[in-house]
Amino acid sequence: MAPQLDPGDLVARARRGEPRAVARLISLVENASPQLRDVAAALAPHTGRAHVVGLTGSPGVGKSTSTSALVTALRRQGKRVGVLAVDPSSPFSGGALLGDRVRMQEHATDDGVFIRSMATRGHLGGLAWSTPQALRVLDAAGCDVVLIETVGVGQSEVDVVSLADTTIVLLAPGMGDGVQAAKAGILEIADIFVVNKADRDGADQTVRDLKYMISLGDRTAGDAATWTPPILKTVAARAEGVDDVVAALDGHRDWIDRTGERERRRLRRAESEIQAITLEQVRSRLGDVSGAATLPALAKRVVAGELDPYRAADELLTAISPG
Amino acid sequence: MAPQLDPGDLVARARRGEPRAVARLISLVENASPQLRDVAAALAPHTGRAHVVGLTGSPGVGKSTSTSALVTALRRQGKRVGVLAVDPSSPFSGGALLGDRVRMQEHATDDGVFIRSMATRGHLGGLAWSTPQALRVLDAAGCDVVLIETVGVGQSEVDVVSLADTTIVLLAPGMGDGVQAAKAGILEIADIFVVNKADRDGADQTVRDLKYMISLGDRTAGDAATWTPPILKTVAARAEGVDDVVAALDGHRDWIDRTGERERRRLRRAESEIQAITLEQVRSRLGDVSGAATLPALAKRVVAGELDPYRAADELLTAISPG
Repeated sequence: MAPQLDPGDLVARARRGEPRAVARLISLVENASPQLRDVAAALAPHTGRAHVVGLTGSPGVGKSTSTSALVTALRRQGKRVGVLAVDPSSPFSGGALLGDRVRMQEHATDDGVFIRSMATRGHLGGLAWSTPQALRVLDAAGCDVVLIETVGVGQSEVDVVSLADTTIVLLAPGMGDGVQAAKAGILEIADIFVVNKADRDGADQTVRDLKYMISLGDRTAGDAATWTPPILKTVAARAEGVDDVVAALDGHRDWIDRTGERERRRLRRAESEIQAITLEQVRSRLGDVSGAATLPALAKRVVAGELDPYRAADELLTAISPG
Repeated sequence: MAPQLDPGDLVARARRGEPRAVARLISLVENASPQLRDVAAALAPHTGRAHVVGLTGSPGVGKSTSTSALVTALRRQGKRVGVLAVDPSSPFSGGALLGDRVRMQEHATDDGVFIRSMATRGHLGGLAWSTPQALRVLDAAGCDVVLIETVGVGQSEVDVVSLADTTIVLLAPGMGDGVQAAKAGILEIADIFVVNKADRDGADQTVRDLKYMISLGDRTAGDAATWTPPILKTVAARAEGVDDVVAALDGHRDWIDRTGERERRRLRRAESEIQAITLEQVRSRLGDVSGAATLPALAKRVVAGELDPYRAADELLTAISPG
């Protein structure tokens, strides 16, 4: 076994901060390589330290600029930072046609920053499965903070960002974003609201809209240990207000540590991760089935009306079950 | 067994056009009722006739207005129409806070129109599983056309809309939508482009942008039977251009019938449906596990770093396997 392919060695090198080892490990877990299980086992003892921050918002609110400004502010504090871009509209993510990667280039040569775009073109469960795996790598590699950037519209993105310890919901004035955010169920998952582009007309109105919407929810129900999400204003392109966001992140991390909420969120994240892997295992076995119970053969009978999809699923499940 | 609960009887009544029977059947399949399998079996012989049309686009392009205008135009042709709204920002869908349902109210008393909002708050696979089931009900109930309305940003929405026979991608001038659509991978799935709000400044520019982007793709690669997506302009609020969209839908349906593409899309849809049900069955069994291999117990060990999530998934899979 060549030394660079030994998972234990790769993990040790990643923990010493070697960017290539980190990149290699993420590729191994993302591509479900044969060594995936060895990698997962080698990572397990070293995870659980990073502050996992989700950052979400509609296209156009300035997620990429904000992510970059946050990275700069966190680096100034000497923190190691990981970025996972699972936003299909992000200039960091693979799907961008016209994306400028310029903003993040200032971080490209910084060994304390790891940036990774997650593929979003895969099947529905792919993101739910691969994102936590990449997160584990960055966590084990010693990142103090891992930012997960997603566009906050689809259910899958909401699911992914809901894995975070702290979720920032980003808005911008005059886009009706408050309303859109509320519709997409984003209000419920926000720990911190940031109104970006706060130098534009309507920023104060957006803050007022948000306060009103929060007041409609029943977030204040429950014990005295309830967290009330702060509403901050930034101009990320000029780094204005970004230190306040970092302070709010620290404040929320302290709160989840103190109240046991962090442990609850980690357990929820692990449950979701195990479940996604289990489903992924089943999905991969579907491809191994041969004979009359293959997916194409069953689909043909369903299209012909000879079989309903539930009985087809029964046949598939029987075919992939061990023993 | 009470007659109104007999699946065969319900399906017969749905096929006679009784709206309550249709609504009841969709509820049965959506809620995974104990009768689900009987319902699926009773539906199977009657499906495969409807023209399944996906309609997607960013928030604000006028999806709801366009859906309503399309329903009106299709009804004028005497067609039975079903609408499945899986768009979390849609005024038809359950998640709307401030949604006006007024637009669709003109159809509320029309027995030839069935409108159903699909819940989008569930888990990641929920939509992939429940939408095709509801589609089967509307199909078996004799709908000539079923419109599936989704917001075209998240991966799950793209996956759902990709189940359609014909996919309409809706844009509006001056929103940078062309770019956003391209980023979200929507260009690839469009069979028909519609630039709505075409009375606004910039509509012609949006059409030019689209033509340019299509020219960048390699959609023309392949045989002479290649479909070139038309780009149409509408003002849905005044029903302008909607008849052209209906004509384009007919044209595309004829093309997929002629080329065998419809059969291919149906097979793909059935495969995806069987797979989603299979995964859903596995997921539901996860909840039945007891003892040391329950999800919470395994999550605890993963959070503690004692177990990696892959070995946790192995334990879960073993626990749910029959025999």
